[in-house]
Amino acid sequence: MKSRLLTPGPTQVPENVFTAMVNALWHPRSAEFSALLRAVSSQLAALFKTNHEVLTLTCSGTGAMEAAVVNFLRRGDKVITVDGGKFGERWAELAGIYGVEAVTLQVPWGETASPEQLTPLLRQHPDATAVFLTHSETSTGVVFDIAALAGAVHQTSEALVIVDGISSIGVLPFYTDDWGVDVCVSGSQKGTMTPPGLAFVATSERAWKKARTSDLPRFYLDLGKARDGLAAGYTAWTPAVTLIAGLHEALNTIFAEGLENRWAKSATLARAIRAAAAAIGLQLYAKSPGDAVTAVSVPSTIDGRTLLERLRIGYGVRVADGQDRLKGKIFRVAHMGDIDQLDTVGFVSAMELALHDCGWQFELGAAVSAVQRVYAEATD
Amino acid sequence: MKSRLLTPGPTQVPENVFTAMVNALWHPRSAEFSALLRAVSSQLAALFKTNHEVLTLTCSGTGAMEAAVVNFLRRGDKVITVDGGKFGERWAELAGIYGVEAVTLQVPWGETASPEQLTPLLRQHPDATAVFLTHSETSTGVVFDIAALAGAVHQTSEALVIVDGISSIGVLPFYTDDWGVDVCVSGSQKGTMTPPGLAFVATSERAWKKARTSDLPRFYLDLGKARDGLAAGYTAWTPAVTLIAGLHEALNTIFAEGLENRWAKSATLARAIRAAAAAIGLQLYAKSPGDAVTAVSVPSTIDGRTLLERLRIGYGVRVADGQDRLKGKIFRVAHMGDIDQLDTVGFVSAMELALHDCGWQFELGAAVSAVQRVYAEATD
Repeated sequence: MKSRLLTPGPTQVPENVFTAMVNALWHPRSAEFSALLRAVSSQLAALFKTNHEVLTLTCSGTGAMEAAVVNFLRRGDKVITVDGGKFGERWAELAGIYGVEAVTLQVPWGETASPEQLTPLLRQHPDATAVFLTHSETSTGVVFDIAALAGAVHQTSEALVIVDGISSIGVLPFYTDDWGVDVCVSGSQKGTMTPPGLAFVATSERAWKKARTSDLPRFYLDLGKARDGLAAGYTAWTPAVTLIAGLHEALNTIFAEGLENRWAKSATLARAIRAAAAAIGLQLYAKSPGDAVTAVSVPSTIDGRTLLERLRIGYGVRVADGQDRLKGKIFRVAHMGDIDQLDTVGFVSAMELALHDCGWQFELGAAVSAVQRVYAEATD
Repeated sequence: MKSRLLTPGPTQVPENVFTAMVNALWHPRSAEFSALLRAVSSQLAALFKTNHEVLTLTCSGTGAMEAAVVNFLRRGDKVITVDGGKFGERWAELAGIYGVEAVTLQVPWGETASPEQLTPLLRQHPDATAVFLTHSETSTGVVFDIAALAGAVHQTSEALVIVDGISSIGVLPFYTDDWGVDVCVSGSQKGTMTPPGLAFVATSERAWKKARTSDLPRFYLDLGKARDGLAAGYTAWTPAVTLIAGLHEALNTIFAEGLENRWAKSATLARAIRAAAAAIGLQLYAKSPGDAVTAVSVPSTIDGRTLLERLRIGYGVRVADGQDRLKGKIFRVAHMGDIDQLDTVGFVSAMELALHDCGWQFELGAAVSAVQRVYAEATD
């Protein structure tokens, strides 16, 4: 049986990306590797829609989140975090570890936050030096309006806007510079459909200024060292060379297809899944579902783990379980990576069959035809 | 022209390791990945000669060095470092960043350190909580006698023994448990002939006890989280799955060949290079050269950069330049990774030809025949 990865990271990697990694053993201090790194950095800047450099680190997205904390803050700083799920929560946890006080706007899981909710907090804490946001909250499927939230920050405060774009960059429209995002982090195994192991950090000049006075301890995740390295054509530390070669190929593929076309594709796939769920009586978990990941509530009569096992063992399809208190209560389907319309038809067909196996009552084929209707409308 | 990597990391990766990485897209929370991770962890324990677990991190060796500092010390601790080169120096730098006082035994570059030099320092600083050592100092080619130095520590002190085994594990005889090494770090792109991007940390129970009271800030490099993850069959953060698949294949190859046989091979290759250098009037940089990397002094009449360029452009061979103040003054040849006796004959032949091109006077073929004599003796 073929294996199909519809998890929100790792995502399906195209064959040509794997092929590009074979024998990609450039020495990290060679002219050839420098050329590769510079090419990838330019591609990443285009992906993040920024004129500033984007740094590539060898670590997971979490490592890049930690880098976004330790490079731009000072011990004793106060920051604001917006927490609407497991990843929003992580910003405050990271801040606390480094002696930074986090004031948190708590958002119920599955909901988004508005500028109207954020602004009073900004007014109440004019000394906050940074605001930490999550674009696509992978644990709930909610997408936050970064343009609006960043706008609210800049209107009220001098704080840096630091965004977790891990499951959104390359998937959802994102304009780092235009939206006034000072720091945005992402990872290789999401929208850039490369195997895990690389993370990216885009940084504004305002943020670099702050970095100069930051006093938090750092070495491996020191972005100043990474920036100096990139200026000379190298990484600060020995990088995952094969993954960078794969990333270059993946970005070639993405830009050949057109970034805006990929954004549109994710939106169509997400719309299709939402229509499929509705057609067979399934509820979405998020009140404001986004286009990167869809969290579908598992009907209370069905055990979520059994459903996922049926999908995996019966049809070779892997989606993600809920995390923490949502374990077994939702499943999460990604609209990113190397998946297209027909993969989504296949997934919805498997979802129907697995639900049917679990005793859920509905007309077989109803979800698949809902997906087809979405596609037919999209191409009209 | 074929490309041949004789640098002390990245090292040459065998074709089967690259092949194992293609389509290795296991979800890091799948039973299949858990089985892979557990298998790799057992193999690593055999590689490190330890009964304790060995953790795999997605980062470079430097990240693992930082992990060895931030997980086992407290702010204000005093530690002893032995600094005989660029990597020994790094331990003290890392300590300083985290508010740990480093008392350094300064060893002239190219020389080793004896227990007799270390013991007085241990007596003078009985409050030192850790001693940081380097097994193979990659910048100079010197190998330190870890068994003897660790023995001296344990005789005099309660301090942890923390060792940089980055360019030595899998290359030189190393017995983590028998030598009383509490923490040993290494990286994937050296003795384990896997592409860069993974690092390993072996940790004794004594070290874990210290970790419990350590108060240095950490998150991505938190070894407690990595240990808890491994106990459940996972990594703490999304790992470089493809590299772990490659590593598993590389370790299969290493153990099929026999770890002790690989150690013996490195020793033979190092002996061959030393004989080759002597045969054509080249000096070694290290007073006590080890068997992992050989640093050869470039004759003062020759520009080191020109020589390396001749090797690279004329013969497709890449060795490492000297670092910092040794740039252009030495070149460094590795005896690790996927290289064998005939590769070394090829390299020595290229070295002769490049030196000849640079005007060095010697009898062409003298170094190659010296290599052959070493091999003939080794098989007698």
